[in-house]
Amino acid sequence: MAQKPSIPKGTRDFNPEEVAKRHFIMDTIKAQFKTFGFQPIETPSFENSSTLMGKYGEEGDRLIFKILNSGDFLKNVPFEDIKEELLENIDGLSEKNKELYTYKFEGLKGVEELKKSIQKYVKDTYLTEKALRYDLTVPFARYVVQHQNEIEFPFKRFQMQPVWRADRPQKGRFREFYQCDADVVGSNSLWQEVEFVQLYDNVFSALKLEGVTIKINNRKILSGIAEVIGASDKLIDFTVALDKLDKIGEEKVKEEMLSKGVSEEGINKLQPLFILSGDFGNQIESLKSILSTSIEGLKGIEELEFINQAISTLGLKTAKLQLDVTLARGLNYYTGAIFEVSAPEDVKMGSIGGGGRYDDLTGVFGLKNVSGVGISFGLDRIYLVLEELNLFPETVADSTQVLFINFGNKEALFSLEAIKTLREKDINAELYPDSSKMKKQMNYANKRNIPFVVLVGDNEMEANKFTLKNMIEGSQDLLNIDDLITSIK
Amino acid sequence: MAQKPSIPKGTRDFNPEEVAKRHFIMDTIKAQFKTFGFQPIETPSFENSSTLMGKYGEEGDRLIFKILNSGDFLKNVPFEDIKEELLENIDGLSEKNKELYTYKFEGLKGVEELKKSIQKYVKDTYLTEKALRYDLTVPFARYVVQHQNEIEFPFKRFQMQPVWRADRPQKGRFREFYQCDADVVGSNSLWQEVEFVQLYDNVFSALKLEGVTIKINNRKILSGIAEVIGASDKLIDFTVALDKLDKIGEEKVKEEMLSKGVSEEGINKLQPLFILSGDFGNQIESLKSILSTSIEGLKGIEELEFINQAISTLGLKTAKLQLDVTLARGLNYYTGAIFEVSAPEDVKMGSIGGGGRYDDLTGVFGLKNVSGVGISFGLDRIYLVLEELNLFPETVADSTQVLFINFGNKEALFSLEAIKTLREKDINAELYPDSSKMKKQMNYANKRNIPFVVLVGDNEMEANKFTLKNMIEGSQDLLNIDDLITSIK
Repeated sequence: MAQKPSIPKGTRDFNPEEVAKRHFIMDTIKAQFKTFGFQPIETPSFENSSTLMGKYGEEGDRLIFKILNSGDFLKNVPFEDIKEELLENIDGLSEKNKELYTYKFEGLKGVEELKKSIQKYVKDTYLTEKALRYDLTVPFARYVVQHQNEIEFPFKRFQMQPVWRADRPQKGRFREFYQCDADVVGSNSLWQEVEFVQLYDNVFSALKLEGVTIKINNRKILSGIAEVIGASDKLIDFTVALDKLDKIGEEKVKEEMLSKGVSEEGINKLQPLFILSGDFGNQIESLKSILSTSIEGLKGIEELEFINQAISTLGLKTAKLQLDVTLARGLNYYTGAIFEVSAPEDVKMGSIGGGGRYDDLTGVFGLKNVSGVGISFGLDRIYLVLEELNLFPETVADSTQVLFINFGNKEALFSLEAIKTLREKDINAELYPDSSKMKKQMNYANKRNIPFVVLVGDNEMEANKFTLKNMIEGSQDLLNIDDLITSIK
Repeated sequence: MAQKPSIPKGTRDFNPEEVAKRHFIMDTIKAQFKTFGFQPIETPSFENSSTLMGKYGEEGDRLIFKILNSGDFLKNVPFEDIKEELLENIDGLSEKNKELYTYKFEGLKGVEELKKSIQKYVKDTYLTEKALRYDLTVPFARYVVQHQNEIEFPFKRFQMQPVWRADRPQKGRFREFYQCDADVVGSNSLWQEVEFVQLYDNVFSALKLEGVTIKINNRKILSGIAEVIGASDKLIDFTVALDKLDKIGEEKVKEEMLSKGVSEEGINKLQPLFILSGDFGNQIESLKSILSTSIEGLKGIEELEFINQAISTLGLKTAKLQLDVTLARGLNYYTGAIFEVSAPEDVKMGSIGGGGRYDDLTGVFGLKNVSGVGISFGLDRIYLVLEELNLFPETVADSTQVLFINFGNKEALFSLEAIKTLREKDINAELYPDSSKMKKQMNYANKRNIPFVVLVGDNEMEANKFTLKNMIEGSQDLLNIDDLITSIK
């Protein structure tokens, strides 16, 4: 009868240590979000399908998890009932479907048509009404529009919640994972880009992950380059190729551009891009000469310069800001700054954060001309990096600090009196619930890495004292309650 | 084109204030869980359907949200493909279904049979492989069995995650809501019941919700009573009726028992139960005489006495422990202690917490003889009670403490230098992103309830000082950075 228990592909259980480490990261990010004035919101795990569908491209739509309308709706529903309900609901259907359905169900004209009707009906009516959140951005846009009258703009919000994608699971790619986003909507000010650079720096410095690189680019520069080389109509092909520079090298990038129809002459004009060198300022100067004929390109440079100058003045704690003209990240989405954060060079890991400015995020829900800019933290990858570099604080687990050995009910009650006091002093304390053999109880303390054990027998109770055993050093002391507290703390 | 945005029935958006208040409650509970030695785990939002189905009764099964196997699987899938896949998957089907399906699809014997096949196929194959978590208890049981070799028993775990139920939404009943559970598995010790009473007391005291009543009962007492009145075979009907004593009164309860077949004589024996009075100790004495002939009943009394005596010795901060022999709560589930917490009497609210001891939680997943005991906190109801009694701390929102007015880029940069320092001192500080009209910026500070505003103009920059305006008192001071920090803190 018993089932061998397992969890769905692409999902994870988190044990106490993992939960503690994940929350350490999230709490650190959250604390920084708050000092920057971001406010938390939370949205439902599932949205109406219509809110999500069509927002992530065709591939995205396919990866959205859909939820059945009601738990077990189809169970025991005779076909006749479905037909009834279908006909009742027909008012909600388009004229064309209405006609189609009426025709099919009234006439039962043929098996094939009927089969299709059923398929379509099941899909339309039962499967696609609700769907699990695919990211935090679209629900945020929906939130802003729905609650626009309660919100003060510019609205600085952060959100840390799981999202779900029906992707093929593989190493480092899950079907359920957390996103940690901060966005500002309702202002075009570049000071926000400046603050997001500071925010990245603050978070990674607080995590003691020093030496991350915050790469920055601007969509307008990419457009400018495409314009200059006469490939404005091939902006996407062009940037997709440029984005691969790190991976496939200059020659292959040029080949790909050629194959996509960028002219030889245009590619030659790109040459200075490939040898862009020096610090941020030098690179900006080179870009200025490359883009001298593109108004949009020059605007992008101006924006970058503004951000870079502010950051130079304000300084960064441990991160560095780097111009990367090959950075594209979802180009169709971003309209201004583009950010990406990479881990220190000695760690092999993709980006651990990214973001940028987007216009008209909320337009699809009816609120036009609201500009936004935001960044995201890649929780799972940051976790792996901290693990690899051994950067989690030792105290992160925050688990039990002291176990009282249980020698019997009298001793247990005496122990619970002390435990009560310890807990009031914020010490995590446990009584072993059963008066099992000493060895078993000590074994439990060892396996759980509990650093202190308290032994209470007749002598201790009589003297109103406690024998404290330090499990790491092996030392043992007879202490009163105050000294017990001091020793454990 | 624009959609009018909304969220699915029974789900909620939480605005920043609500998020802050909810997390205040959860953080308070979590802090207490930790001092008691409970460790956090997290499980996936969706489980294999087989893990959940059949665990919550027929009604429960119906309320489980099922997820489509893959995002948009049925879209564009011609019927012929489904047929192919069906035939390929036929090995996984029972012999009977195999025959049925082969027959149906090979022969296409008739419309009705075909329709049923499609329905069944869609349901079996696509709809029920994964399902959203319905509670935290079954996933916990699954976790314990799956990870039994990594776990030290007794295992004290807590878990705070959302659950989903396809219930008809109504006031106070949602389709997505958080559960906050703490359980211990792997020990029969009654000290755990004692600690759970303390834990309830500690949490509600920490929340400043004083005067809650922790009601306690024991399944063995209910069984004992049923035995004594000769209604052991009617235990459920009997307890369901008894459970209504508060609502419908003694006479109606008796009527209901009679109608369910409890004898007149038996009901007469119950009389002392209805007039059970005095403190815990007095009630226990009365119960002892009522249950003197029931071994199981007397065992239940012994357990209650143990818990009550320990709690009397240890004391409670603000809660009171009360015996309630009418308390039943999911009788089929609990095997020992049964807990329920009610809000202070001046608040009209159902239970704000509950729990009890259950045997064999993990048996269904193949791990026998593991006893457990656990309690749960009703987050949504606790929220409403704290709101009604105005018990949320004023500082709970933890939002922006100071807004720097933006008079232009030079001033903004100067301000950001100061803001950087403030944030390092854990002050939540914002720069208004645009150099909009003063009135608009002040308005933003007002609407957001930001208590301090800083004004930086030429004079301030020259003197390296800041004009701090207290938005509540209206006062204004010219301060250096250190005094600025002190004043805001």
